[in-house]
Amino acid sequence: MATDHRPRRAETRLQLVVRSTEIDINGHVNNAKYIEYLEWGREDWYERFGLDHASLLALGAVTVTVNLNVNFRRECRQGESLVVVTRPLRLGRTSFAMTQEIVTETGEPVIDATVTTVTIDPKTRRPRPVPEPLAAALVGDEAEGRSGGVG
Amino acid sequence: MATDHRPRRAETRLQLVVRSTEIDINGHVNNAKYIEYLEWGREDWYERFGLDHASLLALGAVTVTVNLNVNFRRECRQGESLVVVTRPLRLGRTSFAMTQEIVTETGEPVIDATVTTVTIDPKTRRPRPVPEPLAAALVGDEAEGRSGGVG
Amino acid sequence: MATDHRPRRAETRLQLVVRSTEIDINGHVNNAKYIEYLEWGREDWYERFGLDHASLLALGAVTVTVNLNVNFRRECRQGESLVVVTRPLRLGRTSFAMTQEIVTETGEPVIDATVTTVTIDPKTRRPRPVPEPLAAALVGDEAEGRSGGVG
Amino acid sequence: MATDHRPRRAETRLQLVVRSTEIDINGHVNNAKYIEYLEWGREDWYERFGLDHASLLALGAVTVTVNLNVNFRRECRQGESLVVVTRPLRLGRTSFAMTQEIVTETGEPVIDATVTTVTIDPKTRRPRPVPEPLAAALVGDEAEGRSGGVG
Repeated sequence: MATDHRPRRAETRLQLVVRSTEIDINGHVNNAKYIEYLEWGREDWYERFGLDHASLLALGAVTVTVNLNVNFRRECRQGESLVVVTRPLRLGRTSFAMTQEIVTETGEPVIDATVTTVTIDPKTRRPRPVPEPLAAALVGDEAEGRSGGVG
Repeated sequence: MATDHRPRRAETRLQLVVRSTEIDINGHVNNAKYIEYLEWGREDWYERFGLDHASLLALGAVTVTVNLNVNFRRECRQGESLVVVTRPLRLGRTSFAMTQEIVTETGEPVIDATVTTVTIDPKTRRPRPVPEPLAAALVGDEAEGRSGGVG
Repeated sequence: MATDHRPRRAETRLQLVVRSTEIDINGHVNNAKYIEYLEWGREDWYERFGLDHASLLALGAVTVTVNLNVNFRRECRQGESLVVVTRPLRLGRTSFAMTQEIVTETGEPVIDATVTTVTIDPKTRRPRPVPEPLAAALVGDEAEGRSGGVG
Repeated sequence: MATDHRPRRAETRLQLVVRSTEIDINGHVNNAKYIEYLEWGREDWYERFGLDHASLLALGAVTVTVNLNVNFRRECRQGESLVVVTRPLRLGRTSFAMTQEIVTETGEPVIDATVTTVTIDPKTRRPRPVPEPLAAALVGDEAEGRSGGVG
C-alpha cells in the first residue's frame, strides 16, 4: 500500500462509559467489546466528516476492515469513562489505515490499534479507489475547511 | 518473547453456526463478533487440555490477551457453518502465541489471526511463568499423552 | 388479538452451547443473551418452514417483535448445552404469538417466554395481515405437508 | 408479591447513543440490545443510591431478574440519543419490581417494561429479604435524604 500523502491526523475523540453487559467473568471489559469501541470511534470519525454509511454508499463505496492489530495495555471496569481517539495513518489507492487509541479520563493507555480498511464497490464486492471526499478527509484537506466539528 | 520450543501444533477445531444477532447492517458477521468466535476457539482449546479458567486459577495463573493481529478474508452470512481452528505457535517464559483460523465448511479462509497471551498472577496482576501443564500442552507433550480429545 | 385457530404446535428445537463471551460478572449467562438465544430459536423456526427474512420480504412482510414476556428460572454457565424450544401459541389477523422455552440437556427449565410479533409492510412500516404461508405454518397445515423438517 | 409500600418513584434517567454494533440487519436496534440498555438503566439506579454490586454483596445479597415484560413501541437507528428512565414500582418481601421506559430525546416512547427482581443469598442462592437500604431506596426514604443525586 503506497503512502503518497502525509495525513494531518485530523483526530476525533469519542467518550463512552463502560456498561455492565460489557464486563466478562473476570470483572473487566472483554477483548471483543474493545473491538466494538474501536468501531464506534471510526464510525464517529466518518460521521464528523459527513461520510457515514449512506453517504459513502451514494459515492459507490463501502468500507471493509481487512486487518486489525491491537495491543491491550490495561484492564477496565464497569463505570469507567474512556475516550476513543481516532486518526488517519496512511492512505493508499484502494485502502487506508487509521491509528486508534483508547485511554482513560486521566490519559492512561488502555488500547492502541492500527486498523486497515479497503473501499469496495458494493455490487462487485471488489476493491475500488478510495472516494475523493474520503481521501481528502484522510489527508486533512477536508478537516481544514471545517469549523469545530473535529475534537 | 523467546521461542525455545517447537510446538507440535496440537490443534482443536470448534464448529459454530452464524446466528442472526451476530449480523450487522451490512448483512454479514460484524468484525467484533469474529473476535468472540476466536475466544470461543481458544476456550475450547484450553478445556480440551483440562486447562479451563478454574484449573488455571488453581495453578495460580490467569491468561490475559495482550495482542491480536487479525486478517479478515471473506464475508460470512447468517446460517453459515464455520470452523475455528486453534493451535500453538510460540512459547515464551511468561507468554505464548496461538495461530487461529476461521474457515467455512468447504475450507475457504474467513479469518486468520495470531493471538499473544500473557499469564499473570491473579493477585499481583503481574506476569508470571506459564504454568507447567499449560506449557506442556503448548509444546505438545500433553497432547501425546491424551487419546482422541484433540480434534 | 383474536385467537381463531388452534395451532398444532409445530415445534422446533435448536441446540446451543453457552460460550465464554455470553457470561457476565456473576459467572452466568446474562439476561440479554437469553433474549438472543430466543431470537435464534425463532429464526430457526422460520427457516425450517422456508420463511426466512428474504422469503417473507418477497411476500411483502417483515416481522417485528412487539412484546416479550420472559421468566428466568435457573442460572446457566459456560459450556452448558441448552435447547431452545419454539412453537406457535396464537394467530391473529396481523399478529401472532409464540411460546419459547429454554431447557438444559436433561430437561430442566431455564427460561419460558411468550413472544408477540406483528407483520408489517416493509415500506409503510404499518401492520399488514400475516402472509398466508406464515399463517399456515403457524396453524400447522404447512407442517403436515412437510417431511421431517421440523425437529 | 405484596405491595405494602407506596414508592415515591425515585427516578433515574440514563442517556445513551445508539452505536453501530447495536444495529441489526434491519438497520435498527436489535431487541436483545434494548434489554442491555434496560440493565444499564437499572445499574445506574443502583449506583446512584450507593447500592452497586459490591455494596449489595457486602449486605449479603445479589439481585437476580426473574421476569421481564417488555413492549417495543418504535424502531431506533444508529446515532439516535435515547434516555432510559428507571423507577420503583412495587416492593415485596424478597422481591421488587421496577418500571422502565426508553424514550427519544423528544420524549417519544421506544420501550416500556416491567422488571421483577428477587434478592438472593449469594451462597445458598435462595431468596432472602430485600436488604433494608435497598428497600428504603425503593420506597423513597433514601431518596429524600439525598441531595441532587437522583436525576
